[in-house]
Amino acid sequence: MLLYCILILLTTQSHCYGPPFRRDLQSTHQATMPTKQHYSQGLETYRVPMSLYATNRVKVITSLLSKLTTSSISQGIVLLEGGKQETRQDTDHEPVFRQESYFHYLFGTNLPDCYGALSFVRGEHKSVLFVPTWGEEVATVCGESPDFEELAEELGVDLVLGVDSLSGWVADELGRLQSEKGVNGSVNGHSSNDGPKLFVLKGLNTDSGNYAKPAYYQGIEELENMKDEDTLFNCIAECRVHKSQAEIDLMRYTNFISSQAHVDVMRKTQPGMMEYQLGSLFMHHTYYNGGCRFMSYTCICACGPNAKILHYGHAGRPNSRLLLQNDMALLDMGAEYHCYASDITCSFPVSGSFTPDQLAIYTSVLNAQVRVIEQLKPGVSWIDMHRDAEREVLKGLIGCGVLLGGDDVDSTIECMLEADLGAIFMPHGLGHLIGIDTHDVGGYLEGNPPRSTRPGLKKLRTARVMEEGMVITVEPGCYFINRLLDGALQNEKQKYFFNEERLRDFRGFGGVRLEDNVVITAAGCENLSQCPRAPQEVLDVMAGKEWPPNNDILPGLKRVWATCKGGAMEALDLMQKA
Amino acid sequence: MLLYCILILLTTQSHCYGPPFRRDLQSTHQATMPTKQHYSQGLETYRVPMSLYATNRVKVITSLLSKLTTSSISQGIVLLEGGKQETRQDTDHEPVFRQESYFHYLFGTNLPDCYGALSFVRGEHKSVLFVPTWGEEVATVCGESPDFEELAEELGVDLVLGVDSLSGWVADELGRLQSEKGVNGSVNGHSSNDGPKLFVLKGLNTDSGNYAKPAYYQGIEELENMKDEDTLFNCIAECRVHKSQAEIDLMRYTNFISSQAHVDVMRKTQPGMMEYQLGSLFMHHTYYNGGCRFMSYTCICACGPNAKILHYGHAGRPNSRLLLQNDMALLDMGAEYHCYASDITCSFPVSGSFTPDQLAIYTSVLNAQVRVIEQLKPGVSWIDMHRDAEREVLKGLIGCGVLLGGDDVDSTIECMLEADLGAIFMPHGLGHLIGIDTHDVGGYLEGNPPRSTRPGLKKLRTARVMEEGMVITVEPGCYFINRLLDGALQNEKQKYFFNEERLRDFRGFGGVRLEDNVVITAAGCENLSQCPRAPQEVLDVMAGKEWPPNNDILPGLKRVWATCKGGAMEALDLMQKA
Repeated sequence: MLLYCILILLTTQSHCYGPPFRRDLQSTHQATMPTKQHYSQGLETYRVPMSLYATNRVKVITSLLSKLTTSSISQGIVLLEGGKQETRQDTDHEPVFRQESYFHYLFGTNLPDCYGALSFVRGEHKSVLFVPTWGEEVATVCGESPDFEELAEELGVDLVLGVDSLSGWVADELGRLQSEKGVNGSVNGHSSNDGPKLFVLKGLNTDSGNYAKPAYYQGIEELENMKDEDTLFNCIAECRVHKSQAEIDLMRYTNFISSQAHVDVMRKTQPGMMEYQLGSLFMHHTYYNGGCRFMSYTCICACGPNAKILHYGHAGRPNSRLLLQNDMALLDMGAEYHCYASDITCSFPVSGSFTPDQLAIYTSVLNAQVRVIEQLKPGVSWIDMHRDAEREVLKGLIGCGVLLGGDDVDSTIECMLEADLGAIFMPHGLGHLIGIDTHDVGGYLEGNPPRSTRPGLKKLRTARVMEEGMVITVEPGCYFINRLLDGALQNEKQKYFFNEERLRDFRGFGGVRLEDNVVITAAGCENLSQCPRAPQEVLDVMAGKEWPPNNDILPGLKRVWATCKGGAMEALDLMQKA
Repeated sequence: MLLYCILILLTTQSHCYGPPFRRDLQSTHQATMPTKQHYSQGLETYRVPMSLYATNRVKVITSLLSKLTTSSISQGIVLLEGGKQETRQDTDHEPVFRQESYFHYLFGTNLPDCYGALSFVRGEHKSVLFVPTWGEEVATVCGESPDFEELAEELGVDLVLGVDSLSGWVADELGRLQSEKGVNGSVNGHSSNDGPKLFVLKGLNTDSGNYAKPAYYQGIEELENMKDEDTLFNCIAECRVHKSQAEIDLMRYTNFISSQAHVDVMRKTQPGMMEYQLGSLFMHHTYYNGGCRFMSYTCICACGPNAKILHYGHAGRPNSRLLLQNDMALLDMGAEYHCYASDITCSFPVSGSFTPDQLAIYTSVLNAQVRVIEQLKPGVSWIDMHRDAEREVLKGLIGCGVLLGGDDVDSTIECMLEADLGAIFMPHGLGHLIGIDTHDVGGYLEGNPPRSTRPGLKKLRTARVMEEGMVITVEPGCYFINRLLDGALQNEKQKYFFNEERLRDFRGFGGVRLEDNVVITAAGCENLSQCPRAPQEVLDVMAGKEWPPNNDILPGLKRVWATCKGGAMEALDLMQKA
């Protein structure tokens, strides 16, 4: 029998992403769910309540209905195609499967080669997952086919069926919705062209330039006249921008375990190691201790001059430098858990103590980070934040003599911004939305500010005004990139700001980046990352002192101290801990 | 200027894969190469000489020419397309790139989005690599475009060009070869339809059922009449079957580092851990200590009853069991280094001591492994080896009372084989060719024995007769799979062999598999893997005793003890070590 979920939007759900972070929240969530309905890698790893995905489904259907009010369509099917298990080229090598992100958002399953449907009539919907099944030969190799009832119970969906019944189910269900419409009469007196629609996903990913692929199966062509490719994408993308409390708790966990791993790496880093060994330590820490099978992205372990290569670490630059005594390390590494990302960068001196120049650059970036985080709250423009970060970096460069501040430093800095000098030292955006994707969706959805064309600003992955429930990275940086510096020294608007002689001291410096993941709350923001940031914290941790510390010497960073106990996130009182 | 390599097939190259493993071999290799011409991850990781790939190129061109004697074509271009950097679905998430295997075989580079060409005229060829280049914006993110001359020097290829010049180069080169033919006259008096050909790769991978994709670029359609899709695949695949000494040394390294990692995991395994933690330990050990960024395949960390799922560990079975005191662990894990694989399975009791039943099954599998390895040499049929492995497993099952041996055990076992009983307990092939792919190519190339249709035998990934230079896994196993057992108990030919009551003791046992990588030599074989195999070795290692041991108590396994020093593999004398 097909059960219908009643669309109840509780007040606590619609405003559930706000502060404060509550000690008892996770247990409340779990109390409402059967014990089977969570995802966990076991031991002390985080227990993700499957209600997270039920909430996501409700949000999407609600959003879709609100978009459909003008057309008076009030029933239909949302159909998503999950990710496919791939093989490497012509071989039978199968990389470990990671779910497609939109599909994960609605169904929360790691299984490849699935489809998922939400069939809705006005305020009610049911969720149906279609999974592949296999015969006995494959069962010997891969294990038994999923049991439909067990899987439905585990995932909290209404029904699980085999993918072989997808085509028939969709056709039958559309017919049923059509007849239901007939029985119940049309809404607002609209005519029969407002029959049920099949909503599939199609839209541009503004980070990759690629398009989300509409669900396809053999036979769907026959439903062409019922298909709607225009509505769903914006709905889901916008839902994904605003995280629920359960999503924030999950990202608090990925930040917790990744922060711990950064501390572990920081402690073990020494001159004479290879960069990739730092990545290996990080991946092992997060998988072994945190159950994180995947990194959110390829580890960037950039030491010495490599730090100026923003996405260092790929196949062509495989973290292959030998760490030297005077290197700064820039480690941009984050683990994901059940497809929710973290994205954290720490920078520190490999030797365990800062040189004056290292400290100067580090401090200017830290000042930028604090300045942004102190201001973040609903209504703030991300472009303004980017500019403020540039101001602090430029101020730091004036402070250490690389740039010339003149008599009125503040107005000189405004002139520098006008001359796009910020983009010479920070040639990337201040940060990006983060969620199921590291560069999460929704940065330039329609109705929001467009991408700027100016140097620096055009690199921003979003230009949006901050809203409650957004999770965004704050990652100011300062790099010394010869090509950009040489260009600036040739540029009529920029060259007068430089002290060329002092600049030479920094030509092989590399760079510094500090990156935290921050959630926008009603009153301001919370920093989900818990890394050593103040120079003294960095040195203390590298010298072996305990982390988290006994008091927070940098409250402006708004780090929310938390730990994972028994699979739930708990707030941590630093003083009581001590 | 384009330099030509002269095709010199030294005697040491054509017979270079034979024993004995020589202490000084690697240094000899390196002495012939400029220091830049190797691949290494630094520190003590293995230095792969780029001459390995030069040898591969010579082998392929020689093989191709020998295939072309009947057609009298003596010039042409071999064109391969490298693997592409991919993104995950519509996002900008880029998994770490791993090179396509055929391309790696000839060019040995980790760079994505390349093409490679070998232009040959009779006994001479030149190698040209086409690499992507990018502008300043991408350079800030990914680092500078490759320097062509430096890259050619590093890789030991004759020329590096940008991919944008590929189309023009191919057209020009074919024209040049055509005119060269005109100048030098045709071979054996053949007519002008024997002009230069463009050889591209097309052929069936018999493990995946997929086809290798012929190189494609915009404009290649115009060369349709010069294209040859029929010849190259078999040539390269057959070359890949017979490993050179440099390839064997490299695989000795991947086996060395993976064996060490297995020992590390064995020592750290305890009841109360999760399966995936064992995989994390393995991956960290091989990456941190061995520079192995990739696993050859997804770690199979199958404990207790999970051991009966042959390819456990995938997304649907994510190594998520809690280890119990009485579990057997079956860990099938191998790292690759510069695209050359290892594939090793260890089985051991989680508790650190065998129960009598565990020891009985373990011993029967070990006996199968020794029996096969003792016999392996050129001329031996892999099918016969599979049968011998089944014999030992069945004998062991008779020994522990699961099967009934009757008065004449040996002839009973033959009756069991006739009834396909071996495939009930070992429902996979004895092993597979291994090289750049874990399931390496060439298992069923034309001219070799076809795939059997019988249970068990049909699972073999090759039915070939052993030849010198083949590297093959020997991986007998014994599993208790309820579905297969229940089927056998219903099968008129099989049910009479069972002691059903005794069988019940093993219903939740899972299974045991032992897997080594073995190279066929002129006189027999060498075992590249160096894992604890004798039960006493396993218990000693788990109790913390040193590995490798001071003497080899199981010489039948033909383990060749070696270690990596200063980036080269060295033979290890166990006695002297002590």
